Amino acid sequence: MTDITLIEAAARRMQGHVRRTPLLHAPLLDRLAGRRIMVKAECLQITGSFKARGGWSAVSALTPDARARGVIAFSSGNHAQGVAYAAAKHGAPCVILMPSDAPKVKIDNTRAYGAEVVLYDRATEDRDAIGARLSQARGLTLIKPYDDAQVIAGQGTVGLEIAEQAAEAAITTAEVLVCCGGGGLSSGTALALAARAPGLRVRTCEPVGFDDMARSLASGQRERNAAASGSICDAILTPSPGELTFPILSRLAGPGAVVSDDQALQAMALAFTHLRIVLEPGGAVALAAALFGDDLPDTVIAVASGGNVAPEVFGEALRRFG
Amino acid sequence: MTDITLIEAAARRMQGHVRRTPLLHAPLLDRLAGRRIMVKAECLQITGSFKARGGWSAVSALTPDARARGVIAFSSGNHAQGVAYAAAKHGAPCVILMPSDAPKVKIDNTRAYGAEVVLYDRATEDRDAIGARLSQARGLTLIKPYDDAQVIAGQGTVGLEIAEQAAEAAITTAEVLVCCGGGGLSSGTALALAARAPGLRVRTCEPVGFDDMARSLASGQRERNAAASGSICDAILTPSPGELTFPILSRLAGPGAVVSDDQALQAMALAFTHLRIVLEPGGAVALAAALFGDDLPDTVIAVASGGNVAPEVFGEALRRFG
Repeated sequence: MTDITLIEAAARRMQGHVRRTPLLHAPLLDRLAGRRIMVKAECLQITGSFKARGGWSAVSALTPDARARGVIAFSSGNHAQGVAYAAAKHGAPCVILMPSDAPKVKIDNTRAYGAEVVLYDRATEDRDAIGARLSQARGLTLIKPYDDAQVIAGQGTVGLEIAEQAAEAAITTAEVLVCCGGGGLSSGTALALAARAPGLRVRTCEPVGFDDMARSLASGQRERNAAASGSICDAILTPSPGELTFPILSRLAGPGAVVSDDQALQAMALAFTHLRIVLEPGGAVALAAALFGDDLPDTVIAVASGGNVAPEVFGEALRRFG
Repeated sequence: MTDITLIEAAARRMQGHVRRTPLLHAPLLDRLAGRRIMVKAECLQITGSFKARGGWSAVSALTPDARARGVIAFSSGNHAQGVAYAAAKHGAPCVILMPSDAPKVKIDNTRAYGAEVVLYDRATEDRDAIGARLSQARGLTLIKPYDDAQVIAGQGTVGLEIAEQAAEAAITTAEVLVCCGGGGLSSGTALALAARAPGLRVRTCEPVGFDDMARSLASGQRERNAAASGSICDAILTPSPGELTFPILSRLAGPGAVVSDDQALQAMALAFTHLRIVLEPGGAVALAAALFGDDLPDTVIAVASGGNVAPEVFGEALRRFG
């Protein structure tokens, strides 16, 4: 089970391989929002998202034997790159199963990190069956995107850094807004903050229509989304909260926030203008909640979780909101 | 005169007000370039460029009396924002003289930082005469953009940080590529590196047609550009090297590099994809030289000096090279 000890151990294993990302802020953005917004810029993380942390944590925790046989992951993108990067640096073979309609930049990058990419058709093929066949034949260890104690521990290092950086900025009380898919980043961050900065509370942030976590936190049980796709926030569309992540968030997180796709695009444009960082829609959801949400305190910390975005999508954000 | 003592004093005065920017790198960018490129991301600096350093250094070095009367600067943008930010934080009145055709985002931001913006017509009005009249009437101190010992000292703190960050990354020998207008950033960085990391040597980087520094370094005397405008790299178009900056660079810098506007745009697109940072054309010139230059060692450090760019210009970089 993930706890602060596991998170701190993951942080030690990552040293020198995964970046301590900066906590940015911009006076003009604060003026616009009417509150102080600190942005944890995980888009500047190696591989362009926080997923490098979970990937590193999981691969580095394997036995030498398991590492030599290799790892496998199912992912449409950021998790794939995180695992591929970590595997390559550990000399571990790596297979990534990706839907054939995943963004081309993410497929290319995953291959460039040295992984073997196996594409499947979302409509006609069974991802889990293909994965099980490959894993058995080659003895690969499956690295799940969020329901894995070491992955949650890796993502939790974001929370450790926020605790330190908030203390440096003399912030003792704040809401920490986190982009949420299956809840790996949110739950790891919540665990780290509960142990190291108890005045900072996590709130999950999701796109409209894919607010399974917000509804689950409200009802007290794991709810499912009606649809599997239909938001531009592709990086954080998951059917329901994780088995491991939900109990953690149920205990530690405040009510979930929900934003529209247009608010995510507008947050991308404002991050471009005022912070000079590149965010993908799913990585801008927490900043959108920080900018446009109600019922927030004077200081919020928004985790900008990723920046792997197609130029056309970014161009749209700039044309409409830049 | 600027020396390492003045630079280190400026660094102390900046503490907590000016950001220590990260040194980024991306495995896939290195593969593409065929060399290791470390990027000093000054686009993430407060106000979006390194100019906040020089502005802070100069304003904080004023006597209390001079500070109370206020400061004035001539600038089309980044220097204006840097000085305006520093003045506001010191409670000093601030007048910025800007050409009326400066990018709107830069005018707006300068006003938002609390400065009084006075616009003049480049074609029909004499900037220096307007500035002199205002300075005399109100006792304002002129903060020059580069030919000022305290401004050079402030920009030199980039070099101090590079020296520390290179040591952390075990880099002892490298070329440090620096976007160059009048030479404030290049000369300050060169002074700091000569004192704190003598294996790192500065090379200035300029756009084609505005390579006054490269030609001056070659000829040994201050050369002038034929034209005053005509490159998209608006932030770094100056008529000739500074009086104070040129002797420093003549002594400490290698031969200057020159890149095309298209190479600067392509560097912006590659920084978007691989580093997830926003660069303006003038701030991407050093990265362009790192990517496309000949005659470079295996490791280079490129200073990405600024990221204040209109969405339309950034969109063009993405459309053409993204």
